[in-house]
Amino acid sequence: MIKNTAPFMRQAVMDLEESRIREVANAGMGRPDVLAFWFGESDEVTPDIVRQAAIDSMQEGETFYSHNLGLPELRQAVSDYMSALHGQTKVIGVDRLAITSGGVNALMLAAQALIDAGDEVVAVTPVWPNLTAQALVMGAQLKCVPLRPVSGQWQLDMAALKSAITSATRMLIVNSPNNPTGWTLSRAEQAEILAHCRSTGTWVLADEVYERLYYETDTANGCAPSFLDVAQPDDRLVVVHSFSKSFLMTGWRLGWLVMPAAMTPHMGKLIEFNTSCASVFTQRAGLIALQNTADITPRVVAHLKTCRDTLLPLLQAVPGVQVAPAKGGMYAFFKLEGHPDSVVTAKRLVAEAGLGLAPGEAFALEAAGWLRWCFASKDVSRLTEGVERLKSWLAKNESGADPH
Amino acid sequence: MIKNTAPFMRQAVMDLEESRIREVANAGMGRPDVLAFWFGESDEVTPDIVRQAAIDSMQEGETFYSHNLGLPELRQAVSDYMSALHGQTKVIGVDRLAITSGGVNALMLAAQALIDAGDEVVAVTPVWPNLTAQALVMGAQLKCVPLRPVSGQWQLDMAALKSAITSATRMLIVNSPNNPTGWTLSRAEQAEILAHCRSTGTWVLADEVYERLYYETDTANGCAPSFLDVAQPDDRLVVVHSFSKSFLMTGWRLGWLVMPAAMTPHMGKLIEFNTSCASVFTQRAGLIALQNTADITPRVVAHLKTCRDTLLPLLQAVPGVQVAPAKGGMYAFFKLEGHPDSVVTAKRLVAEAGLGLAPGEAFALEAAGWLRWCFASKDVSRLTEGVERLKSWLAKNESGADPH
Repeated sequence: MIKNTAPFMRQAVMDLEESRIREVANAGMGRPDVLAFWFGESDEVTPDIVRQAAIDSMQEGETFYSHNLGLPELRQAVSDYMSALHGQTKVIGVDRLAITSGGVNALMLAAQALIDAGDEVVAVTPVWPNLTAQALVMGAQLKCVPLRPVSGQWQLDMAALKSAITSATRMLIVNSPNNPTGWTLSRAEQAEILAHCRSTGTWVLADEVYERLYYETDTANGCAPSFLDVAQPDDRLVVVHSFSKSFLMTGWRLGWLVMPAAMTPHMGKLIEFNTSCASVFTQRAGLIALQNTADITPRVVAHLKTCRDTLLPLLQAVPGVQVAPAKGGMYAFFKLEGHPDSVVTAKRLVAEAGLGLAPGEAFALEAAGWLRWCFASKDVSRLTEGVERLKSWLAKNESGADPH
Repeated sequence: MIKNTAPFMRQAVMDLEESRIREVANAGMGRPDVLAFWFGESDEVTPDIVRQAAIDSMQEGETFYSHNLGLPELRQAVSDYMSALHGQTKVIGVDRLAITSGGVNALMLAAQALIDAGDEVVAVTPVWPNLTAQALVMGAQLKCVPLRPVSGQWQLDMAALKSAITSATRMLIVNSPNNPTGWTLSRAEQAEILAHCRSTGTWVLADEVYERLYYETDTANGCAPSFLDVAQPDDRLVVVHSFSKSFLMTGWRLGWLVMPAAMTPHMGKLIEFNTSCASVFTQRAGLIALQNTADITPRVVAHLKTCRDTLLPLLQAVPGVQVAPAKGGMYAFFKLEGHPDSVVTAKRLVAEAGLGLAPGEAFALEAAGWLRWCFASKDVSRLTEGVERLKSWLAKNESGADPH
């Protein structure tokens, strides 16, 4: 006698797209013959020294609840690390930092802190779908400003972005270096966006988890331009970071937030209500990772650059492929001519070629026809083998068009 | 030139109360002379065998992303475990289960899945404040139905609850065995509440994390009555569980959700957008914990019963104290006559007696004058020493009244 008057769940949640990446990956997961490049993670295990720190912590019995905002010593280490990168004029103090259960968790916390149902949120797309989905979970009205591809290189239309952000805009979501396109904001563009958002009272939520994975040489600190470099401490700016990419710690679920100091106590409450804290042993691992960043991160980035520089020319030589080098991140994002539906293409590549890529539709409708290739591969020959598989598959489908 | 037209953060988030428990704990944390009973956790380290499972997983290199809904083998183990307890008529299948980053994370996910801004939510109070705060983060209109204390025993006014839940009520939040009061629903009451919620189309969010910590002998399975025992698989019911209490795993942040099967894929999306997954090594620990529940949990519960049965008579013998035995959970919740402001009292007890308790106001306004004592203490003599400190402090304050 259940009265089904109320809807099953929130419509906003039921409407959320299931990941188109998982949709493709599910078609090939567990198949050892598939070369999988669909997820955004390296296939290299977390460094020994980092794992050992967590093991030591467990053996010492650190299995209890901890501080909402993170271990004081880890927050201090993050403060030191961030200040070395971005504290040219002023240190980034612990009072501006919270440790989170991953970068994605940090982004969700920011959405909870800032988005009331009905608020307008602007996002620069294509983008990692979680960023826009979180805003929708919080009930936002989402307005997307698409990047535009020019010869395989995605570019921002600054005028379009500025006209999209008005005093009615609560938050701008921007991810640079960008997943999936590799597009990266310049410092001048960041300053221009920030100035505009100041004039409209709009928060900037900057996902900068790929900042260390930067292959240009135009910045003094070697990492990608950051909103932190152009902002004041009390600007309406939240920057999200993660241990996942720069320290090979995807599975650990550890990240952090940089925010105005006045926001931090409120963030502590939200962390209490979301996950309460990150595990202490996980935080100990993060602490050791930061203390050894000079050994870990440059090696990771140098290897990723080798991966990029191996994959890119091979892909560029494939007829029908349009792709430009990513300035940052760990993805080659390329257009495959004659294959306008990338979900279909990606599923066929799994089934027919043993090649696992992510479809562009996962990141934006305007990216249909594009495919994302995560080039974070410990063994570079997997990349060359992948290109061979792509070429063979294309040769077998010389008509070029999807049969669908 | 920041235009401060927009509010700083969401008003709903700024209005959230900071934990009154942390407020008291902050006054005494790190002071070795304070006997701390303020938090809801045992002071016993996670069992060796459980920690070793996580260590093995790390050493084997399980440091990558994993399934949103949890490792298939862990979901199967939870299914077996839950079915043994509550599957009298039907197993609780893996299609109804999601692994979460702690019980609190499971509760927040349920709130995200079900609460649109403006929805009416009814909560039975006093209750762990995170439960009501999560609803407020999602923009709910909160209506509280207070339990009533009779000789120190908190009781439900079923008529008041049923008249509070109407067809306008989206969700009922109920935590039984209850933190902080120890109040526990009977199976008959659960059936009556469920029938009423079916008639109004209201979801029941049942926090049953203390179900194994039950000291009565009136159920066949030895654990507290559960809504799962009276519900159908497709009822609007979400039950939240945690590894924290029954397996001494508070700091691990691992829990699970039981829900209607049709909800599970949507929950997978929400997990992706909140934390993506629990760490694999943490899930391996949970798996070993479940496989060894026969060794771990009865020992934990028997010790907690000893703790309760040690503390209760001592507290009952203190003049001015009103307290009844908790049917379940790990708290003695008692009224201290002549001390109407428990935040003041708790802070004074920390400063003047070296005794750390949680103030009733943390759980509901109607619990002002009450104090929560977590009796999960490995060393039972800490409890007797704590009562001595309380008695000495009371003797020194014979007037009985707060000086404030």
